[in-house]
Amino acid sequence: MRFLELAGRRQSDRRYAETPLPRDAIERCLEAARLAPSACNSQPWSFIVVDHPGDRDRLAAAAFSGIYNMNRFAARAPVLVAVVTERSKYIARLGGMIRGVQYSLLDVGAACEHLILQAAEEGLGTCWLGWFDEKAVKRTLGLPREARVDVLISVGYAEEGATREKKRKSLDEVRRYFRS
Amino acid sequence: MRFLELAGRRQSDRRYAETPLPRDAIERCLEAARLAPSACNSQPWSFIVVDHPGDRDRLAAAAFSGIYNMNRFAARAPVLVAVVTERSKYIARLGGMIRGVQYSLLDVGAACEHLILQAAEEGLGTCWLGWFDEKAVKRTLGLPREARVDVLISVGYAEEGATREKKRKSLDEVRRYFRS
Repeated sequence: MRFLELAGRRQSDRRYAETPLPRDAIERCLEAARLAPSACNSQPWSFIVVDHPGDRDRLAAAAFSGIYNMNRFAARAPVLVAVVTERSKYIARLGGMIRGVQYSLLDVGAACEHLILQAAEEGLGTCWLGWFDEKAVKRTLGLPREARVDVLISVGYAEEGATREKKRKSLDEVRRYFRS
Repeated sequence: MRFLELAGRRQSDRRYAETPLPRDAIERCLEAARLAPSACNSQPWSFIVVDHPGDRDRLAAAAFSGIYNMNRFAARAPVLVAVVTERSKYIARLGGMIRGVQYSLLDVGAACEHLILQAAEEGLGTCWLGWFDEKAVKRTLGLPREARVDVLISVGYAEEGATREKKRKSLDEVRRYFRS
């Protein structure tokens, strides 16, 4: 599949079949994430895969209650991946401080998208989740208070396989060619 | 090309041939970026393509002088893309504030990586650049002071075509399967 076709096919899926995922497919998704680039090659990420149904239920209950209820659909995904934003190398953090940019978020964005694109190629549905009770997630996963879980990703076989038309700004709205 | 193969082939290239790039290849890279996912579909990005040699020289001189000198190599790339981080939708900014995460950086990370993966498929070399004089870049491009240019991307035909072995942490170092 050409990359543009893959990028067009990737979409946020919010309904999943109950079919469990084979771990080798999950491993390929994580392998793709592992290969992503990062500032100073810091690789400021780690991935906690929750694919045991009981644990997945506990994590989802913790993550998506109260004001975080809108992402409750993810409780039905056979796999939830908690993406931990790790500290970048000192030189990248120093550079980021001077520049006023948290490079590690750019890096985690790229790595998560690698994971998700590989999932799309595997025929899996995914959804990026940024809206969840992080404290409760960390408690459930036994992570220290200072850990950062900025993203959860739900993964499963999408119940509706059809590719939706993407709603995006036109190319003319988002790019221009500069001439002084 | 399978996605894992593409992810393995993508690498940071720092030496470019002088050959100019056809705009249709640049357009496909931008199209890939345009299709990237983002929090609340905010699409908080825009791309300024600098492919006129005189303008490219002026931008590079502004971006990579003084303490930013280490990225001087990018002055030889036929194309520099300035990636502007735009404001996310209100609801995404509010959510990000509550969660303490700048979602727009995750989004820009995903979109830049789409651009770069498409470039890799086109046989082009690229490099993410986060270390440059942003104020001087904005002045050169006529952007307002409050604009954010968090990333520059250099694009060209890589002078050395060989794929290097990637230095990454092992999968065992970056992922684990959770059991309570």
